[in-house]
Amino acid sequence: MKPCIVWQTDFGLKWGAVAAMRGVCKQVDPALECVDITHEIEQYNILAASREIIYVEPFWPKGTVFVSVVDPGVGTSRRACVAKLNDGNYIVTPDNGTLTHLFYQVGISEIREIDETVNRYPGTEDVSVFHGRDIFAYTAAKLAAGIIDFNGVGPSYPLEEIVLFRQDMIKALIDGQTVKGIVSSISDPFGSIALNVLSGDFKAAGFSHGETLHVTLSNKETIYFEKDVLYEKSFGFVEVGDPILFDSSTNYIELGINQGNFRDQFQVKSGSDFTFVISKS
Amino acid sequence: MKPCIVWQTDFGLKWGAVAAMRGVCKQVDPALECVDITHEIEQYNILAASREIIYVEPFWPKGTVFVSVVDPGVGTSRRACVAKLNDGNYIVTPDNGTLTHLFYQVGISEIREIDETVNRYPGTEDVSVFHGRDIFAYTAAKLAAGIIDFNGVGPSYPLEEIVLFRQDMIKALIDGQTVKGIVSSISDPFGSIALNVLSGDFKAAGFSHGETLHVTLSNKETIYFEKDVLYEKSFGFVEVGDPILFDSSTNYIELGINQGNFRDQFQVKSGSDFTFVISKS
Amino acid sequence: MKPCIVWQTDFGLKWGAVAAMRGVCKQVDPALECVDITHEIEQYNILAASREIIYVEPFWPKGTVFVSVVDPGVGTSRRACVAKLNDGNYIVTPDNGTLTHLFYQVGISEIREIDETVNRYPGTEDVSVFHGRDIFAYTAAKLAAGIIDFNGVGPSYPLEEIVLFRQDMIKALIDGQTVKGIVSSISDPFGSIALNVLSGDFKAAGFSHGETLHVTLSNKETIYFEKDVLYEKSFGFVEVGDPILFDSSTNYIELGINQGNFRDQFQVKSGSDFTFVISKS
Repeated sequence: MKPCIVWQTDFGLKWGAVAAMRGVCKQVDPALECVDITHEIEQYNILAASREIIYVEPFWPKGTVFVSVVDPGVGTSRRACVAKLNDGNYIVTPDNGTLTHLFYQVGISEIREIDETVNRYPGTEDVSVFHGRDIFAYTAAKLAAGIIDFNGVGPSYPLEEIVLFRQDMIKALIDGQTVKGIVSSISDPFGSIALNVLSGDFKAAGFSHGETLHVTLSNKETIYFEKDVLYEKSFGFVEVGDPILFDSSTNYIELGINQGNFRDQFQVKSGSDFTFVISKS
Repeated sequence: MKPCIVWQTDFGLKWGAVAAMRGVCKQVDPALECVDITHEIEQYNILAASREIIYVEPFWPKGTVFVSVVDPGVGTSRRACVAKLNDGNYIVTPDNGTLTHLFYQVGISEIREIDETVNRYPGTEDVSVFHGRDIFAYTAAKLAAGIIDFNGVGPSYPLEEIVLFRQDMIKALIDGQTVKGIVSSISDPFGSIALNVLSGDFKAAGFSHGETLHVTLSNKETIYFEKDVLYEKSFGFVEVGDPILFDSSTNYIELGINQGNFRDQFQVKSGSDFTFVISKS
Repeated sequence: MKPCIVWQTDFGLKWGAVAAMRGVCKQVDPALECVDITHEIEQYNILAASREIIYVEPFWPKGTVFVSVVDPGVGTSRRACVAKLNDGNYIVTPDNGTLTHLFYQVGISEIREIDETVNRYPGTEDVSVFHGRDIFAYTAAKLAAGIIDFNGVGPSYPLEEIVLFRQDMIKALIDGQTVKGIVSSISDPFGSIALNVLSGDFKAAGFSHGETLHVTLSNKETIYFEKDVLYEKSFGFVEVGDPILFDSSTNYIELGINQGNFRDQFQVKSGSDFTFVISKS
């Protein structure tokens, strides 16, 4: 079996962009299988692209070729690249920050810039706005099909030159039995709030399932949420409609509402403006 | 060929949940093919999950492994199970009511509780909120790949213990040439209203294509719709914008508007609060 | 390898319609692979169906079987057909205008009406509202599987009888160095405005990358947009938030905003009511 090509973009599924890319792959090799992560990443949100792929990548067999196209700089000077990860997977993407979470959480062993003179879909030289189809799909397909090996992508370049969103990888501060951090993302469609603290770090700091903890969520001076909240392993441990702290499937701590939507109810957004404090009650 | 794994969840497609589950299947056996019904079932709506799968299940080859994950009780005491259907298909699901329509309309021959000690994706023991990935996907993949047979799922339990929404399966009353029932669901995206009367029963009661019938739709004392409506085999038999009674693709009677949206126009919702009466004009 | 079946419909992905059609294909031949273009074409919008498929069709290997089901006349007298394209691909569709863009831009070599007496999924004779499943999916699968050849679809009929939206294929007028035309479509999700002038014709008329051009967009007497705009090969050549004329991935000229949404910002819709004039500044 050839490795799958696993996709994420901000193209949406209301038009033919995804199917055009897939057709290019089938032209390269009809035996290639394409699978979608999502095509509904918020338009132009590179940080979201970086975060979403880390949720999926560890669960795929080694050798899988991921493609991520959130590419506001398409057709300009940003690099088109393929990165080889420490676990043996590949990712084909613009080098524009998309690699941040993979770099810090999986590790990148080598990176190569795509040589467009050999790895561009023939006949598309006059199109500059659809590298997803003309360069990324075509290169990913050649790599997955074994038509080129990793060296065949193009010249390698130093790992130090990879574009990274370093400030977005900062973890929460654990000080005694108080944890202070930010809302790192919001899990759709359930609307739980992901906090920038790992479940393992949280437990190591002395917090245990079954405990009730004091949680405050603020944006500067405004308090959006302040309550005593149970910490458990799943949201089903409180009554429907009650808030809960739990270990998410990505091993971070999340704040949610059993069968409700925390984001909608408390009007929270992700990002460093929203800070939390958790302490023993 | 190995059987397909056919999925429905309430996870949405804006994040990586579905692709993570699919990666687990590919790790079990790269030859497995996953196909989606929908991932946009209304969050936590178990009855909708039960209803949606019956629309698809009869059209798949025998031996297909369905997976349904609408699971508000994830991580609590509800059973994770695999049911074997009378037609030879399987369904992997929380036993929380999702099996209702399959139980009544296809029949279940045997049901087994998933033994998590052998059928959980290794390394996920600390996660309790994503059985879709860690238990359901992993068990479905092992079953579809032939790594376990149905006995290998775990211990069987009595069919009488299956959680069923019995009251939602009640059919309309046919009394002479009057039919009284409820709105059982609304068909997206066209917005037709599915009534709880089978086309076969309707015809047996004396109603025929080409007849104009008197239709009333109410919620308690409030009448939402009252009109003489043509009964035909398709909505294209009336002018654009006119209402029509027709035989749906699931063999129930539906009330719609040709090239319009009945639900939006008359503000109808599904459920037993909305009752209908159809009679000879 | 058997050819893929590549789909577009207006059914949406919130229910089981697509998966039911796919199950029918798998019953015909479990080795068949189905791939989606989109299922979110605007309901009943046949012209959009015609336009969307042309975006994807040229990028698929020869022999691919496309299926398009935007079918407001289902169950009435419109023809169900299979067209053979000049490039060797097939399309299975109601003959209701969906073939317009393929007819003019790829060419149709032969068309046959589906003979329902042999190419209808057995047991669905009482259902008239789901030809997507019962006729189109079943016929496409038999054709892709090699169970029937093109002759086996049913009787051929004259190309002159194909239903076409001729007026929607009119190109912009190029008069000296002024181009006058209409908004032919709007590209989701980025909201760029596709104009009915090919990049090649535009360049042949003397417009070049790097030039600033005067662009006016009106609906009758109302001007929606009037500005000097850079013409370049990609939107990334202007500042974020600035308008830009660029060559789209379908080789038409588009008007967009770098990392913005032109449609939303200027409240433009597609169609012949919206006209544009481009001239040298």
